[in-house]
Amino acid sequence: MFTPQPIGFVSSPFKDTKSIPKGIGAQHPEEGELRILPEFEAGLTDIEGYSHLIVLWAFDRSDGFDLMVTPPTDSRAHGLFTTRSPRRPNPIALTVVELLGRDGGSLRVRGIDMLDGTPILDIKPYLSNVPAEKLRRGWLGEAEARKG
Amino acid sequence: MFTPQPIGFVSSPFKDTKSIPKGIGAQHPEEGELRILPEFEAGLTDIEGYSHLIVLWAFDRSDGFDLMVTPPTDSRAHGLFTTRSPRRPNPIALTVVELLGRDGGSLRVRGIDMLDGTPILDIKPYLSNVPAEKLRRGWLGEAEARKG
Repeated sequence: MFTPQPIGFVSSPFKDTKSIPKGIGAQHPEEGELRILPEFEAGLTDIEGYSHLIVLWAFDRSDGFDLMVTPPTDSRAHGLFTTRSPRRPNPIALTVVELLGRDGGSLRVRGIDMLDGTPILDIKPYLSNVPAEKLRRGWLGEAEARKG
Repeated sequence: MFTPQPIGFVSSPFKDTKSIPKGIGAQHPEEGELRILPEFEAGLTDIEGYSHLIVLWAFDRSDGFDLMVTPPTDSRAHGLFTTRSPRRPNPIALTVVELLGRDGGSLRVRGIDMLDGTPILDIKPYLSNVPAEKLRRGWLGEAEARKG
């Protein structure tokens, strides 16, 4: 298909996975930087107009996968594709961040949940929401309801 | 980093790119199927509880990239990472679909904008929205406002 290549790297306060908040109601208020490589910087033109970005990145410190996963949010196992487990057939992650500012190839953002040094694969504009009244969130919604 | 592999393929009414609606206000009401390969089917366990899914897939019929892009929605060029252009350093696409039903490894979904036969890289649960009052959508929002 294609050979993944980093377009940049994350500068993050998280140096190990244990320090990243997980589970129900986990907040990600941390700020960090998306440092885009000079050869891709022109692709950021006009990005300041967007409040939120979708960042695709590689789980580069993850290996292999299991099809059933017991996530930190629940005591029961669920199908991998209903979870955000880093261990996936294609170890691609997605994070929505708030864009705070730009300095050349560096984007200052809020909502970091990546490890420091994580390779960035792509940045896309966040364009629209699913209407809240139409959204059902499976076992995660149920686990949140149980926790209250 | 990793070698992308299909976890399945899209069954879509779109046989060529020209038939896919594009531009401001483009709707994607089409239904199709995400056909997950038998060896990954167990990873779909419990997915019926989710109304919406994030599908990551490969622009497998796209080649190369330009850092400045004039999208169908505007007459001006913008940075690649503010657009949904298929020509990207890592040709990974993202589509949010509504899950209508499941039959084994086949997910019937609404909101298809992929070509028939497109390789699927990952499926993730759609969990939350950016608050509408906090969302700014850059040149796309401006182009929509001009169009009225």
